[in-house]
Amino acid sequence: MKKNAEPATREQRLEAFQPLSGMVVPRFAGISTFMRLPYLAPTQAPGEIDIALLGIPFDGATTNRPGARLGPRQVREASSLMRLVNYGTLVAPYDLCACADVGDVPVNPIDVQDTIRRIEAEVAYLHQGGVTPLSIGGDHIISYPILRALGSKGPLGMIHVDAHSDTGDTYFGGQKLTHGTPFRRAIEDGVLDPERVVQIGIRGTMYSADERQWALDQGIRIIDMEEVAEKGIPYAIAEARRVVGTEPTYFTFDIDSIDPAFAPGTGTPEIGGFTSREALQLVRGFRHLNLVGADVVEVSPPLDQTGGTALVGASIAFELLCLLAEARAERTAKETRLNVV
Amino acid sequence: MKKNAEPATREQRLEAFQPLSGMVVPRFAGISTFMRLPYLAPTQAPGEIDIALLGIPFDGATTNRPGARLGPRQVREASSLMRLVNYGTLVAPYDLCACADVGDVPVNPIDVQDTIRRIEAEVAYLHQGGVTPLSIGGDHIISYPILRALGSKGPLGMIHVDAHSDTGDTYFGGQKLTHGTPFRRAIEDGVLDPERVVQIGIRGTMYSADERQWALDQGIRIIDMEEVAEKGIPYAIAEARRVVGTEPTYFTFDIDSIDPAFAPGTGTPEIGGFTSREALQLVRGFRHLNLVGADVVEVSPPLDQTGGTALVGASIAFELLCLLAEARAERTAKETRLNVV
Amino acid sequence: MKKNAEPATREQRLEAFQPLSGMVVPRFAGISTFMRLPYLAPTQAPGEIDIALLGIPFDGATTNRPGARLGPRQVREASSLMRLVNYGTLVAPYDLCACADVGDVPVNPIDVQDTIRRIEAEVAYLHQGGVTPLSIGGDHIISYPILRALGSKGPLGMIHVDAHSDTGDTYFGGQKLTHGTPFRRAIEDGVLDPERVVQIGIRGTMYSADERQWALDQGIRIIDMEEVAEKGIPYAIAEARRVVGTEPTYFTFDIDSIDPAFAPGTGTPEIGGFTSREALQLVRGFRHLNLVGADVVEVSPPLDQTGGTALVGASIAFELLCLLAEARAERTAKETRLNVV
Amino acid sequence: MKKNAEPATREQRLEAFQPLSGMVVPRFAGISTFMRLPYLAPTQAPGEIDIALLGIPFDGATTNRPGARLGPRQVREASSLMRLVNYGTLVAPYDLCACADVGDVPVNPIDVQDTIRRIEAEVAYLHQGGVTPLSIGGDHIISYPILRALGSKGPLGMIHVDAHSDTGDTYFGGQKLTHGTPFRRAIEDGVLDPERVVQIGIRGTMYSADERQWALDQGIRIIDMEEVAEKGIPYAIAEARRVVGTEPTYFTFDIDSIDPAFAPGTGTPEIGGFTSREALQLVRGFRHLNLVGADVVEVSPPLDQTGGTALVGASIAFELLCLLAEARAERTAKETRLNVV
Amino acid sequence: MKKNAEPATREQRLEAFQPLSGMVVPRFAGISTFMRLPYLAPTQAPGEIDIALLGIPFDGATTNRPGARLGPRQVREASSLMRLVNYGTLVAPYDLCACADVGDVPVNPIDVQDTIRRIEAEVAYLHQGGVTPLSIGGDHIISYPILRALGSKGPLGMIHVDAHSDTGDTYFGGQKLTHGTPFRRAIEDGVLDPERVVQIGIRGTMYSADERQWALDQGIRIIDMEEVAEKGIPYAIAEARRVVGTEPTYFTFDIDSIDPAFAPGTGTPEIGGFTSREALQLVRGFRHLNLVGADVVEVSPPLDQTGGTALVGASIAFELLCLLAEARAERTAKETRLNVV
Amino acid sequence: MKKNAEPATREQRLEAFQPLSGMVVPRFAGISTFMRLPYLAPTQAPGEIDIALLGIPFDGATTNRPGARLGPRQVREASSLMRLVNYGTLVAPYDLCACADVGDVPVNPIDVQDTIRRIEAEVAYLHQGGVTPLSIGGDHIISYPILRALGSKGPLGMIHVDAHSDTGDTYFGGQKLTHGTPFRRAIEDGVLDPERVVQIGIRGTMYSADERQWALDQGIRIIDMEEVAEKGIPYAIAEARRVVGTEPTYFTFDIDSIDPAFAPGTGTPEIGGFTSREALQLVRGFRHLNLVGADVVEVSPPLDQTGGTALVGASIAFELLCLLAEARAERTAKETRLNVV
Repeated sequence: MKKNAEPATREQRLEAFQPLSGMVVPRFAGISTFMRLPYLAPTQAPGEIDIALLGIPFDGATTNRPGARLGPRQVREASSLMRLVNYGTLVAPYDLCACADVGDVPVNPIDVQDTIRRIEAEVAYLHQGGVTPLSIGGDHIISYPILRALGSKGPLGMIHVDAHSDTGDTYFGGQKLTHGTPFRRAIEDGVLDPERVVQIGIRGTMYSADERQWALDQGIRIIDMEEVAEKGIPYAIAEARRVVGTEPTYFTFDIDSIDPAFAPGTGTPEIGGFTSREALQLVRGFRHLNLVGADVVEVSPPLDQTGGTALVGASIAFELLCLLAEARAERTAKETRLNVV
Repeated sequence: MKKNAEPATREQRLEAFQPLSGMVVPRFAGISTFMRLPYLAPTQAPGEIDIALLGIPFDGATTNRPGARLGPRQVREASSLMRLVNYGTLVAPYDLCACADVGDVPVNPIDVQDTIRRIEAEVAYLHQGGVTPLSIGGDHIISYPILRALGSKGPLGMIHVDAHSDTGDTYFGGQKLTHGTPFRRAIEDGVLDPERVVQIGIRGTMYSADERQWALDQGIRIIDMEEVAEKGIPYAIAEARRVVGTEPTYFTFDIDSIDPAFAPGTGTPEIGGFTSREALQLVRGFRHLNLVGADVVEVSPPLDQTGGTALVGASIAFELLCLLAEARAERTAKETRLNVV
Repeated sequence: MKKNAEPATREQRLEAFQPLSGMVVPRFAGISTFMRLPYLAPTQAPGEIDIALLGIPFDGATTNRPGARLGPRQVREASSLMRLVNYGTLVAPYDLCACADVGDVPVNPIDVQDTIRRIEAEVAYLHQGGVTPLSIGGDHIISYPILRALGSKGPLGMIHVDAHSDTGDTYFGGQKLTHGTPFRRAIEDGVLDPERVVQIGIRGTMYSADERQWALDQGIRIIDMEEVAEKGIPYAIAEARRVVGTEPTYFTFDIDSIDPAFAPGTGTPEIGGFTSREALQLVRGFRHLNLVGADVVEVSPPLDQTGGTALVGASIAFELLCLLAEARAERTAKETRLNVV
Repeated sequence: MKKNAEPATREQRLEAFQPLSGMVVPRFAGISTFMRLPYLAPTQAPGEIDIALLGIPFDGATTNRPGARLGPRQVREASSLMRLVNYGTLVAPYDLCACADVGDVPVNPIDVQDTIRRIEAEVAYLHQGGVTPLSIGGDHIISYPILRALGSKGPLGMIHVDAHSDTGDTYFGGQKLTHGTPFRRAIEDGVLDPERVVQIGIRGTMYSADERQWALDQGIRIIDMEEVAEKGIPYAIAEARRVVGTEPTYFTFDIDSIDPAFAPGTGTPEIGGFTSREALQLVRGFRHLNLVGADVVEVSPPLDQTGGTALVGASIAFELLCLLAEARAERTAKETRLNVV
Repeated sequence: MKKNAEPATREQRLEAFQPLSGMVVPRFAGISTFMRLPYLAPTQAPGEIDIALLGIPFDGATTNRPGARLGPRQVREASSLMRLVNYGTLVAPYDLCACADVGDVPVNPIDVQDTIRRIEAEVAYLHQGGVTPLSIGGDHIISYPILRALGSKGPLGMIHVDAHSDTGDTYFGGQKLTHGTPFRRAIEDGVLDPERVVQIGIRGTMYSADERQWALDQGIRIIDMEEVAEKGIPYAIAEARRVVGTEPTYFTFDIDSIDPAFAPGTGTPEIGGFTSREALQLVRGFRHLNLVGADVVEVSPPLDQTGGTALVGASIAFELLCLLAEARAERTAKETRLNVV
Repeated sequence: MKKNAEPATREQRLEAFQPLSGMVVPRFAGISTFMRLPYLAPTQAPGEIDIALLGIPFDGATTNRPGARLGPRQVREASSLMRLVNYGTLVAPYDLCACADVGDVPVNPIDVQDTIRRIEAEVAYLHQGGVTPLSIGGDHIISYPILRALGSKGPLGMIHVDAHSDTGDTYFGGQKLTHGTPFRRAIEDGVLDPERVVQIGIRGTMYSADERQWALDQGIRIIDMEEVAEKGIPYAIAEARRVVGTEPTYFTFDIDSIDPAFAPGTGTPEIGGFTSREALQLVRGFRHLNLVGADVVEVSPPLDQTGGTALVGASIAFELLCLLAEARAERTAKETRLNVV
């Protein structure tokens, strides 16, 4: 965490950015950062770390029940239940990449446009500094400025796990920036390539029957929950991998994709969702992709009386961290090999 | 909702009885009726609407933990999360039938017999006026007077999704009207045809091993949870359709059929129940039957701290509404064709 | 609730707008309107009713924890515990004035300026139609457009019960419309007369020590909680009556004035507040003033796990209704006498 | 707890009926009886014990929100927080009287009349066996059969602490046995002397303004909450002692007399009630009266998410136990002295 | 429950130790013992009963969030929802064995070593008296002294259902007795045969990647959750039966094996666990083994706001009771046959 | 927070250690440290800061319900509601002293003696480095090692606000280190001067009537709750100031001194306690004493479902911080004057 006079080696950086171990300091103790990682100011991140965990505590684009602004803090709290190594995949992310908690983007809770500017600026700074962002929302609008920042050089692909398509146009008489519209806006801005977007888990009820048509018309592949239930998680994984391919891809995980029995703390729950076991299986299916960032959104602590949703959110965030760390380590290794050649 | 001087056309009625749209008025706003439908006094329902959503806030026949009297109000509240079109089946019930919330039956919380009379009278009035009832309980005794009202011309078949058979005889030394006995009473009264009754999801523990024998002796088909788990939901659907056939059939859905992880707010929970996804799949399997009414019972808000049970209840009620609307539209179309000939 | 061909008499109107009695229909039954009053569309209110209870489900100006957008619905639910007559004062508001629930203002949850316009328009319409508004928020910004509507002809006095002064200038780098700034804006707009404003119950911590100076400089009388505790509720009442005098006065009640033990469900709680008994005593001290409207704000249901805050909010709303009904009946009687002369 | 061949001495009985000590067995351990006292079947109580703690888990006469049937069990659970000696009065009840938990009356949750018979029979049996009952409800109807059992030889006086007068006549079209009517029924039956009844803490709202007139007409002394607040607890105590005098008196404590901030878990809460400190002071003011029994009613666990209401209920029950034990020891001592003479 | 002059026959004992029936006394009534069985002091158990249900309210070895010390009391409370006969297997345990609640081991909450001694002493006393223990924890350390008591004559096999292996060595700089280490200690003490130990459901995250190696090195068969998910419950059952064989076997069930959606009230939840239906299926797969005792551990009521975890715990305890009762009845029958021969 | 090459001036230090302002970064955002102060490793504290806020997450000495180990984290979370200046006293602590959050003492949750050693070592280190400790527990045992560290040069006086005297001797057969015994141990060790100890708020029930005698025999002044209620808070303040005088004094605040309506989240609640307003008044009465440290203990988050207890705890901690900062600034000013002379 300390600034060295000369650039730290990769080994020094990895050693400097280890979470507290629960074998030494009980997991209920200590300052509550993501995964009990060291805190690092975002301005210091470039050159120091590979992956930044950042909170984006904004829910001002929420059309229904609010509370996701309190998500980052509660996910931090729940994330102290995480240990160092993924039991399922044996990935040890902190041995692969230097990771830190860079705190929260200083949002403006009253003004969605101002906040979008602030998020885009911070993520762009990290991205240009070579730092991969793993963000915790916040409502789903936060993915829009992140995509703007990461996709500024060319449109990204996206794996989108959600109960809702979030490709609406306007609400309440012309409101264009809501948590139900981020991906239409990103496609309009040219930072998201709809033909490389896959949406998994869509279900529930619709405002009108042709609501999903716009998305399909853009070329988005929707694997709705009924299709997942019928064909299985491995099919969904294979199909999604086919859609996004090997080009730069973003991963956004809306907690309401998971059934409200497992993740009740969210503003727009829809029954019939993923179990947490299915969600783990699904996310673990996306190793070795070209992932450039990820987020977990819509955890709303006031609607989550037991903290269970935050635990699911933190667990999914850890899985995404494993994906990002492995993907980045593989890119680095590849670049190193190329450079050697 | 306004009374016209001359009979409204079907189109006018459909237009008059649309729920508020969440695209225009946020879903957390407005008076909390079922599905944010217009309110209509039950006395005005005949001739105006096709399907009445009514609350029956009575739990005075509950042998264990109470609270279902508060069910209608909380299900109304949760139902504002519903939109207009079923994502799974694409049924748009409000385009098929004129629907309204006709409020709550004015029950007597101290007296089960008085209450049964009141329920039967109101449902009979609606039924005779050509209005299909979709009721929200209340404990399971409420199905008994509804069956008496709907089955007065001839015994009905019934799809009964529940953790318990509810065909007991007496409790506490001779008590005959409890939420554990409605269907024995209905069979004794000749308003329910046991050979056209199917019970799905029965499980848990029993007072004695021959408890289910009475039901089997009457010819009831019990597909207990172990059989569902072994043979699958599609089998249960097919078997249930075979049992009830094409004659008039009632659909009663006890929320405790669903696992308490998904629907904890109920007085007599039994672990090992349906997931909400299975419940959706099950209910959606009963399209195109000759359904004459339905209910959702045993949602107990004081035992449902997160409101999740009410959300499940409201979602199931919406699915039942889709079944009823579609079935009724089909009957109407058929009658129209017959009349034309 | 029905539109008569010729204008209804006062007696007919009073009879038409009675709440459901809990002696006839149990208080947990029926559609959940404020006080179980009839619903009336706001457009129909002028000429029909004297006092409109309206919900304003907006919390988009909240600087801290959200949720007050869900306040109107939960206060409606809790208000079914109210009966018809005030035990403390024996005021029977529904015998004095025709009252109805006019539903919720159709707010825009994403846009504070748009919402302020919508609120101002609806309240101005009611006001011009001779209807006194009793509003349930929502966060405290909602008082600002109400004051604009009611004070358009001349600045109002105000009784302001709150833990916070809400006379800040800007937040987050220039944000002027927040729930911490409504009364500075209203004073700047000339719709509120600071020399006739009294603030009661202010306490907690401050961003800076001279924060309250602006308010004092305008001539606002602050009776902070320490002064109340020292001098007593009767003193506070007398002092407040002296400040507002006999001219038109608005009454705004922020639920966070009450101690969080009694009303935990609010976004910015401050310990050391009023007990509910003190709050009742305080409000009942303002009979026979020239009140032109009132509100209860900042009830945040997601932060109110037991519903106790909504019960306090509904009880205070009933007390305010008694004040408004009595004041209005007195004004009417006075005008009648004047007209007779 | 064991039956001895020959009658146990008072010392043996006192020794046999001591609660578990929290210095030896942690207070969270052991079977959950009232105060962690030994369990004794009610049939065995006469001759063995002086005071019986009994549960009456019935809420079938509740007109509003239910749940009090679950009260006895939760009060038992909370009562394990009690120790042996009253810090305020230094009364050590278990050194004065042999006390046991005699379990719950086997109520019939569906039938109020049947249940009333069962309660009356059991309490009459205890009473005739010389055992003083301290009952935990259940809704307030349970006081009616207790009064019938204890007042069969002559009408009793009563200290009644409550938010409501509970002297209504009928509900819902003729319903006479509700938790809002027990004391009118008891007066009609001649087991309660209205001129020796004092009601303390009445407040809230009323169905009609002359609702309290019937009670006043019978000669009941109502010290409503406003009078208590104005004149103080010591005044209320003195006035109540004057009313009940030295003749046999019953003490009924409705938990809703206490403010819902302190005791939210009750079906019909009214804000502005007693603090728990006032309640303790009030109850402790009734030492050395001729008390023949007592109850605590209307604790509704499903509405009491933190268990705080049960803790208040258990604490009040302990205070009542101290009153009963001291009163009984004094009567015994007096009788002994008279017998000696 | 009464001590007879001469030894009771098996039939008398079975009749004496029946739970209260919910058909006679409502299930919410009565003293809260396990399954509403009679209470019997542990010292009286030998000769009277076959199976003792005992609470072990200790969580002083918990490395993370506490609360399991409150488990026995809440599981007792939830167990009143159980009836007499297993719907799935038709086993009627109380017709097979005399069962009683023998209360809680008098633990020392501050001192893990003292508590371990106390547990071992009580279980050894029961075991030597021919009583099979079914224990409710408490944290997982309690299995260690139980194994010491039951395995003193020779190492036991064990079915271990859990999210964690609990075979760690030390925490916090040398702490050897924690809830993460009981089975390493038991193996070291020679009371557990690692080659007859099977662990089912292990998942989550690890402190280090070789954490599970020690267990594997001892010969423990780990069927982790991914293997269960892939191969199915029947496979897990068959494999586990193969491992433990026909020799004496203990069954320990950690509630955190179940997914936190179903059982949130536990100190170290891991998402992706068993559904309760899978858990029932799994436990029911172990009929007719040579089971000598069982426990359910880690139910933490303060973390279980709805009581759902306790219900799962009580349901699993009932299933284990069925296993134990059947196994014991079979052993007895076999011994009787052998003796006859 | 940055280490300067040469010693920072007092002004630089004050500027470096300011909390985040809620006017700039919303109070729900950012890493959750105490009061949103900068984090500083405890080893770096001497020379940098004047007052250290430290968490002591240990509840292993709790005799009843646990959970206080989770207190520091939840109090940190709640403390983000605090602003910079005390409204009541106008003290601005961060302008008087450099303050930081130094994280949690790395406790051993299984071993009370080991933990006591660790706490004593860290507090002694801070104390010797001139840093005043303000600690958040944790159960009340934590005050014992703090007193050992701060009183090593001579016994301290103590203001002790609590429902319990905590001067017991042993529990559970000889257990000497429990949260009911710290002050007997501290007196025995000579680090606490009983004649300069005042205990305020004691109430509830006792294990035996002479329990408080030991404390009185040592010369401790007990102002029990009944005395406070009778004579008032100002009397209690004056009397307490008389007892502790002008010598070095410690301030320990047990959250259970406050009524469970205001602070339910604690292991051993006693009804009839302080309101939060009384608590504020009481604490603010101890300005200008010679305070050398303070703590807030027994906040148990799992028992505090709304977070209200943590808010009270954080608010009291802020008041104690104001006391400590002012006292320390006065001592510094005095020393400076002496040095100048």
